[in-house]
Amino acid sequence: MRGQFGEHFKLSIFGESHGPAIGMVIDGIPAGTVIDEEAIARDMARRAPGNDPTATTRKEADRVKIVSGLFEGRATGTPLCGMIENTNTRSGDYAQLRTRMRPGHADYAGFIKYGGYNDPRGGGHFSARLTAPLVFAGSIARQILAAKGIEIAAHIAAIGDVADTPFDPVNVDAAALRALRERRFTLIDPAKEAPMRACVDEARMAMDSVGGMVECAAVGVPAGVGSPFFGSVESVVSSLLFSIPAVKAVEFGDGMALPRMRGSQSNDAMAFEDGRVRTLTNHNGGVTGGITNGMPVILRAALKPTPSIAREQRTVNLETGEDTTLSITGRHDPCVVPRAVVVVESALAIALCDLMMDDRAARL
Amino acid sequence: MRGQFGEHFKLSIFGESHGPAIGMVIDGIPAGTVIDEEAIARDMARRAPGNDPTATTRKEADRVKIVSGLFEGRATGTPLCGMIENTNTRSGDYAQLRTRMRPGHADYAGFIKYGGYNDPRGGGHFSARLTAPLVFAGSIARQILAAKGIEIAAHIAAIGDVADTPFDPVNVDAAALRALRERRFTLIDPAKEAPMRACVDEARMAMDSVGGMVECAAVGVPAGVGSPFFGSVESVVSSLLFSIPAVKAVEFGDGMALPRMRGSQSNDAMAFEDGRVRTLTNHNGGVTGGITNGMPVILRAALKPTPSIAREQRTVNLETGEDTTLSITGRHDPCVVPRAVVVVESALAIALCDLMMDDRAARL
Amino acid sequence: MRGQFGEHFKLSIFGESHGPAIGMVIDGIPAGTVIDEEAIARDMARRAPGNDPTATTRKEADRVKIVSGLFEGRATGTPLCGMIENTNTRSGDYAQLRTRMRPGHADYAGFIKYGGYNDPRGGGHFSARLTAPLVFAGSIARQILAAKGIEIAAHIAAIGDVADTPFDPVNVDAAALRALRERRFTLIDPAKEAPMRACVDEARMAMDSVGGMVECAAVGVPAGVGSPFFGSVESVVSSLLFSIPAVKAVEFGDGMALPRMRGSQSNDAMAFEDGRVRTLTNHNGGVTGGITNGMPVILRAALKPTPSIAREQRTVNLETGEDTTLSITGRHDPCVVPRAVVVVESALAIALCDLMMDDRAARL
Amino acid sequence: MRGQFGEHFKLSIFGESHGPAIGMVIDGIPAGTVIDEEAIARDMARRAPGNDPTATTRKEADRVKIVSGLFEGRATGTPLCGMIENTNTRSGDYAQLRTRMRPGHADYAGFIKYGGYNDPRGGGHFSARLTAPLVFAGSIARQILAAKGIEIAAHIAAIGDVADTPFDPVNVDAAALRALRERRFTLIDPAKEAPMRACVDEARMAMDSVGGMVECAAVGVPAGVGSPFFGSVESVVSSLLFSIPAVKAVEFGDGMALPRMRGSQSNDAMAFEDGRVRTLTNHNGGVTGGITNGMPVILRAALKPTPSIAREQRTVNLETGEDTTLSITGRHDPCVVPRAVVVVESALAIALCDLMMDDRAARL
Repeated sequence: MRGQFGEHFKLSIFGESHGPAIGMVIDGIPAGTVIDEEAIARDMARRAPGNDPTATTRKEADRVKIVSGLFEGRATGTPLCGMIENTNTRSGDYAQLRTRMRPGHADYAGFIKYGGYNDPRGGGHFSARLTAPLVFAGSIARQILAAKGIEIAAHIAAIGDVADTPFDPVNVDAAALRALRERRFTLIDPAKEAPMRACVDEARMAMDSVGGMVECAAVGVPAGVGSPFFGSVESVVSSLLFSIPAVKAVEFGDGMALPRMRGSQSNDAMAFEDGRVRTLTNHNGGVTGGITNGMPVILRAALKPTPSIAREQRTVNLETGEDTTLSITGRHDPCVVPRAVVVVESALAIALCDLMMDDRAARL
Repeated sequence: MRGQFGEHFKLSIFGESHGPAIGMVIDGIPAGTVIDEEAIARDMARRAPGNDPTATTRKEADRVKIVSGLFEGRATGTPLCGMIENTNTRSGDYAQLRTRMRPGHADYAGFIKYGGYNDPRGGGHFSARLTAPLVFAGSIARQILAAKGIEIAAHIAAIGDVADTPFDPVNVDAAALRALRERRFTLIDPAKEAPMRACVDEARMAMDSVGGMVECAAVGVPAGVGSPFFGSVESVVSSLLFSIPAVKAVEFGDGMALPRMRGSQSNDAMAFEDGRVRTLTNHNGGVTGGITNGMPVILRAALKPTPSIAREQRTVNLETGEDTTLSITGRHDPCVVPRAVVVVESALAIALCDLMMDDRAARL
Repeated sequence: MRGQFGEHFKLSIFGESHGPAIGMVIDGIPAGTVIDEEAIARDMARRAPGNDPTATTRKEADRVKIVSGLFEGRATGTPLCGMIENTNTRSGDYAQLRTRMRPGHADYAGFIKYGGYNDPRGGGHFSARLTAPLVFAGSIARQILAAKGIEIAAHIAAIGDVADTPFDPVNVDAAALRALRERRFTLIDPAKEAPMRACVDEARMAMDSVGGMVECAAVGVPAGVGSPFFGSVESVVSSLLFSIPAVKAVEFGDGMALPRMRGSQSNDAMAFEDGRVRTLTNHNGGVTGGITNGMPVILRAALKPTPSIAREQRTVNLETGEDTTLSITGRHDPCVVPRAVVVVESALAIALCDLMMDDRAARL
Repeated sequence: MRGQFGEHFKLSIFGESHGPAIGMVIDGIPAGTVIDEEAIARDMARRAPGNDPTATTRKEADRVKIVSGLFEGRATGTPLCGMIENTNTRSGDYAQLRTRMRPGHADYAGFIKYGGYNDPRGGGHFSARLTAPLVFAGSIARQILAAKGIEIAAHIAAIGDVADTPFDPVNVDAAALRALRERRFTLIDPAKEAPMRACVDEARMAMDSVGGMVECAAVGVPAGVGSPFFGSVESVVSSLLFSIPAVKAVEFGDGMALPRMRGSQSNDAMAFEDGRVRTLTNHNGGVTGGITNGMPVILRAALKPTPSIAREQRTVNLETGEDTTLSITGRHDPCVVPRAVVVVESALAIALCDLMMDDRAARL
């Protein structure tokens, strides 16, 4: 019922983890936009499983086949559909899960919502695999934005108790973001890779999983993007971020630290710099009154630990109506955070693209 | 451009702080819904300024005049428009602010977005006064939900460093929520009122302001509300919460604490209780996979300190193109958190109402 | 449930015929648009009753009070709300109609839809009076379009059997359209006024009513407006035209005559003319493949006779569950066609405005 | 930009005539709906070319592959994507058409809209082949409606000057509609087949094409479906009908004949019949005030002659900037009307499905 997103850059998502394919229809790509399929493949690879010990061993090429909206390398201006085939599905692993609800998963909520008719194989439409089409759409949004001088990158801000150095919210620049996106285990401070991997390994050894945080920045976003109230940058971006299965908290600028601050601390003083208006600090994360102010947009998304764990858990059996226990076998990420980096970037890119089109429409 | 919200319970907001009136058109109220105008007045009073020393001294009755969609005390089923007249406007206070941008406010971002044509008086359409129509719509949403056994209430979770006792996310019940809503300075632990007021007074004395946190709970929400992906409960609720001018962070369940947890801690074990499926803990805030699971929905919204402070601040003068300073005079809340309680409740009520209608539509 | 229209130029209508006021919230007006309130008043007067013997004798000033979105004569870019007070309501006339359903009216359909809760006074939200806010929005749309060289005008194409001269679909020009809009009883051939009035008088004498046709043209519309499929010019324009209570048929170009034509007749041959592509004929009404081709946009809307007639009619009494008869008293137009001219223009103006914004959005 | 349709039963169309595939994503199908793929195949076959001498000789199986949203024969409740591969594309035929604009086609309008970037092969996204996904979605909508006792069928009301017997707008019933849908050349009066075929043959012999009319009826639609104003049944249905490439006029009930009628003729007198409210005539086509009244819904759509004709036509060459001539070769329907019957039915089914869900949503 809510499988669509966007007012101008319109997405329509479809697919289940173990069905024939998943995909996205994107309507509203400016005609003539050069679509760099190699860049898409690189973004898809950043999300794909199997390339890193923190991730599931399920390997999928996750190659996007564009079946419409592309002609001679450019967007036609009509809907562009990208499909990703599901080639490596072992549904047998999930057979028992139709009746025994996995804690922390959508199993029970989804069972009630769809009256038991949803596809349970591999989590069906609830699978985190559905973030693949989001990355596909995000990669195209990013290409559109890059042509306007906007760069977006994210990093692993934390896994468990190990935190990366945060972005400098005032001085982060496009070159730094481009460099960051080249890194496989995406950190500002590479020295944090070893302790983070250790944290994940510890969880895996304990048949457990661990959560984390992704921080994302966009630079080059012009002032004036977003709307007061329902169309605030925070509203639109957060609605996409919270679409990502594991995200349970989102903050902009100093976010959760702001309640403890005074106005004299959280207000960002303004000054001219080379003829442009800038703020001297960026506690507001580049957004005031729901609208960008020309400073870097800074946000963080908190991801809960993967709910699929091998450890035994108490749960219910809907068939028997009795309490039971469950140990989840199969291939699961002990930590989804490294793969979520590009997903968070994609959400921000899509939202900014959609919001920037607002202002075009309103300048008839 | 984004003055509308909702797919079924559809809102259209309008108005500026110092114009003749502000208001909301609501389309999609079930025909025959009894509209309790007294209850609306009570909710409006909870948000209205002038009733509490933490708030601005600008007094406005904030009486909603329903000009359509109501006949003989019931919703007609056609669009209901509620108007709130602006009776106490002293625009003179704001004259100088057309050129000198207030830090932390939408002044500069809005100037760029609207090319200088937006109404600057009292913040215009960016004014926090626009949360009044949201409370109006929220009050109606709440009445619709109450008839289905759903109760919603929020409290001041924190002001500055002073924190209230949080909700018990498993056992919070409707009676407790109804009682909470009767309190003027809305706290679970009334002993926190004095230190919180002291915190606000200190800020005021220092010609400063202070931020805070609002925590909100909904009980009685059936399992199965919300959608995977774009229509997750968190997506829709957060998009409304971030419409509230001061909100900069939103978390569901354990939110920002989840990154540091293990899956074995954050997963909520499930069990039958009197024939109903319940979770033994509620780290997920009543939402898994974007869909309610029948447990209390729990969220927190972080509000930044009021940006309007009397203290001198550095800023820019757009007319002269020079740096300058600014001291904001006029009537301003040193802390908006107490008044924001009912606004946060309203956002949750509206979002739940809209999401619950999804499932009706899909059960043709 | 469907009280909103538009993707960029977004309307939200409200009000009932005998409530305090009716109105429209318009979101998406480009900031800085000069709003000519005199021009709005002139358009409102063209629709207003009481100025012509073909119309009802109910006189209403129909002055629009703009309560938001306007500052110093220009659109602010935030939602603009226009209200029209209902000053001349004699609800007593309608008291009996709550149970005796008027044939040809929405009474019965609306009773079922809203379970009897809709406002029955004066037709409530179903009243043709609700076309007044549409004219208001249309007048603003027209002003936006006029600034881009687009002119729109309509005329009474027919009343009963009396037809006006149709537009020359190839050569109609802006000057002719502007002149047409100055006429009170809007005809291309003024000689048709007398027989048309005679036709209406005859119907009135017979305690009856009569239908008619409105033809509308837009010139200066650039090629490339509209979308294939769901967003065709015909789709969007017709959805607004069919919102007008009496409209039961809509045709573009040669419309209903096309089924009898051969492709060699209906295809419009193309040629360069002063460096611009033109068609030599205009059987397609300026739209091919759902998109404008730069030729005048030509359409016709058929209006059924006013259903309110003094003559006795057979109908049902929902209270008693018995068949009965009904003679409708009160002030009613024997023919709504002259007043509908500006309403049809408004529908076309709004639709074109919304569609033209599409292309802006897509040229980020 | 407008590749999506619907508020509850939401469609997202994609594809080009000569690309790898075309398709539709449908969001909002009630979970658990049994999807009869055989019935879909039958509906697709009714639209498919190559089965009848009136149609193009291009043969395509038009088999829909459902790639998501279906599990064990039932809709899962999550987005359902149907793909139709393009297997028989001879793009060579169209190479010259990139510069020479075909009269009556979208070539020129589309070139301007998309800046020349749209896919020109076979008409690209403008191809009438895109009605195939509409039939797919319509077939599912029809299955949903059939389960609620609603039957929809259409017939060839006219080809050129040859007219079929119209529906009896009061007494048409479900059995008659079901029988009608079994007919390959869909006529109420089979005696009209020979003269209609002769009319098409004549046009083909003359290297020309011919237009026609489709009439459609829905029975069993309950009273109360649709909304006043923007969501009138006529608004929503017409917006879909005008999405069909050749449709240039749409009428409901007596439509274009109403302007010449008196209110005493066009009003449908009401009476109780077996305890139900019925009208004695049906000049309003089952819709009053934009809402169904329980009588059969009756509409007609006028289709222009196929613009692709072998006869030489005057046109422009955009590359050289000169006038030129064009003879269109390749496989083209001399008359699309027989294949359009199921497309018109589909548009009505989809619109009714979407509108009926409105009322569910509003009965929370």
